[in-house]
Amino acid sequence: MKNILLASTSTLYGSGYLEYLLPELKTHFANCKSILFIPYARPSGISHEEYTQKVVLTFAQINIEVKGIHEFENPALAIQEAEGIFIGGGNTFLLVKELYHNKIMTTLKETLETGTPYLGTSAGSNIAGLSMQTTNDMPIVYPPSFQTLGLIPFNLNVHYLDKEEQSTHMGESRETRINEFHQFNNFPVLGLKEGSWLKIKEGKIFLKGALSAKLFRKNQTPIEITPETELSFIQ
Amino acid sequence: MKNILLASTSTLYGSGYLEYLLPELKTHFANCKSILFIPYARPSGISHEEYTQKVVLTFAQINIEVKGIHEFENPALAIQEAEGIFIGGGNTFLLVKELYHNKIMTTLKETLETGTPYLGTSAGSNIAGLSMQTTNDMPIVYPPSFQTLGLIPFNLNVHYLDKEEQSTHMGESRETRINEFHQFNNFPVLGLKEGSWLKIKEGKIFLKGALSAKLFRKNQTPIEITPETELSFIQ
Repeated sequence: MKNILLASTSTLYGSGYLEYLLPELKTHFANCKSILFIPYARPSGISHEEYTQKVVLTFAQINIEVKGIHEFENPALAIQEAEGIFIGGGNTFLLVKELYHNKIMTTLKETLETGTPYLGTSAGSNIAGLSMQTTNDMPIVYPPSFQTLGLIPFNLNVHYLDKEEQSTHMGESRETRINEFHQFNNFPVLGLKEGSWLKIKEGKIFLKGALSAKLFRKNQTPIEITPETELSFIQ
Repeated sequence: MKNILLASTSTLYGSGYLEYLLPELKTHFANCKSILFIPYARPSGISHEEYTQKVVLTFAQINIEVKGIHEFENPALAIQEAEGIFIGGGNTFLLVKELYHNKIMTTLKETLETGTPYLGTSAGSNIAGLSMQTTNDMPIVYPPSFQTLGLIPFNLNVHYLDKEEQSTHMGESRETRINEFHQFNNFPVLGLKEGSWLKIKEGKIFLKGALSAKLFRKNQTPIEITPETELSFIQ
C-alpha cells in the first residue's frame, strides 16, 4: 500500500529547508534509519553532491541518514533496497530526463507502489502525477517522454497561486495555462499551494496543511478543496 | 535579407489587441495587401477560426487582409506564396508541435530568410530563437523537438519580468530559470519585457519600445540593454 507525501514546496518563505514538514517527516520516515535522495532536478543547477549535502544536514535533525543515488553503482538496486526515498525540487524536465536516462522510472513506480515511504517536493511531487505536463518549469532539456509515475490518478500543479487581481502582466495566469492543458488532456489537475501537501496512506489521499487547493477538471468550473478533505473522488 | 518584428506580447495592459504596434505594422507590412496568419498556438484553446477572425478585424484597421493557414490545402505553399506572415501567441509547445506536424518548420525558416516580412508575438517570437527552451509555457503537448527557426542567433524569453523584491512566493524567478537553462545550453537569452520588440532589418537587430531588455549569457552577470541598441553583438 502506497505511503507517500507530496509537498508543493520544500521551503516556506522566511523558513528553513523542509522546516515546516519536519514533524510530519519524523512520523513518515519513523521506520527508516536512512533514506535515498534523488538530486536529479538540481535547483539553480547545483551539483548532485551539493544538493545531497543540504538534504543530509536537514535529515540529521531527525536522526535519519541520507545517501544520494549518484553514490550507487546500480541506481535501480539502490531504489529497490532503500528504506525510504526523497526526490527534491528543481527542474522537472531535467528530473524526468534523468529518471528515463538512468532507466529507473518503472523501478521507482513499482517500488513506491509496494509501500516504500516516499517524499516528493515540487518537481519530486510533479512526477507523482500521470504526466509532467502541468509543471511550471522551463524546458531546459528534452526528456524522451512527458509520462511520469502515476502514483495518483491526476496531475499536480505545484507552487499554485491564483492570479493577482491587480496584476498588469499579460503573461498567462496559472488557471489559463491549466485550461489550455485541458484542451488536449482529460485528467484532472490539482493546484497545490505552497504549504500544502498530499498524504497518501492506506489507500486514501488527504489534503494537508492550512490552505485550500484548487481542483481543475476539463470543461468544469474549478472548485476549492478544503484541508483534510479525502481526495479519492478525483479521477 | 530578413525583415522581421518579434514582439514580447501582442497586447499591453488596458489596450487593444496589437494596438501599440499598429503604427509599426503599417510600415512593416506596407507592401502587403494581404498576410498569412498561423493560429496554431491557440491562446486559451480558442479555435483556428476564432483566432484568425480576431486578427482579421485588427489588420482591417490598416487595410490589410488576413487569411489563416488552416484555410489552405497546402500549408507549405501558402507560406512560400505569402506577401507577409504573422504568428500569434498562445502555447509554444502546441505551436512547435503543429509546425513540425504540418512539416513547415523548414519552409518557414527558408521563406523568412529570403525577406518575406514576418511578425511574431509571444509564442510567435519564441520560435524565432534557436530553440523554444526559454518559453514560459506549460508543456501541454509533446513536440518532436525543441529546436526552432534560428532567425536570430540567441533565444528570447518573452513577457520578461524581474523578480519582485517583496514577493514571498518560492517558485523559481525568471532569472533562476534562465540560469538553469545555461547549465545545459550555451547560447545567450534576451529577456524581452512587455512593450518591447526586436526589429530585424538590413542585417541588423534593434531593440525597440520604451523599456530595457536583459541579456543573459552563460557564466556571466546579466546586463541591461537600452532601447535602440543594435544587437548583432549577441551571439
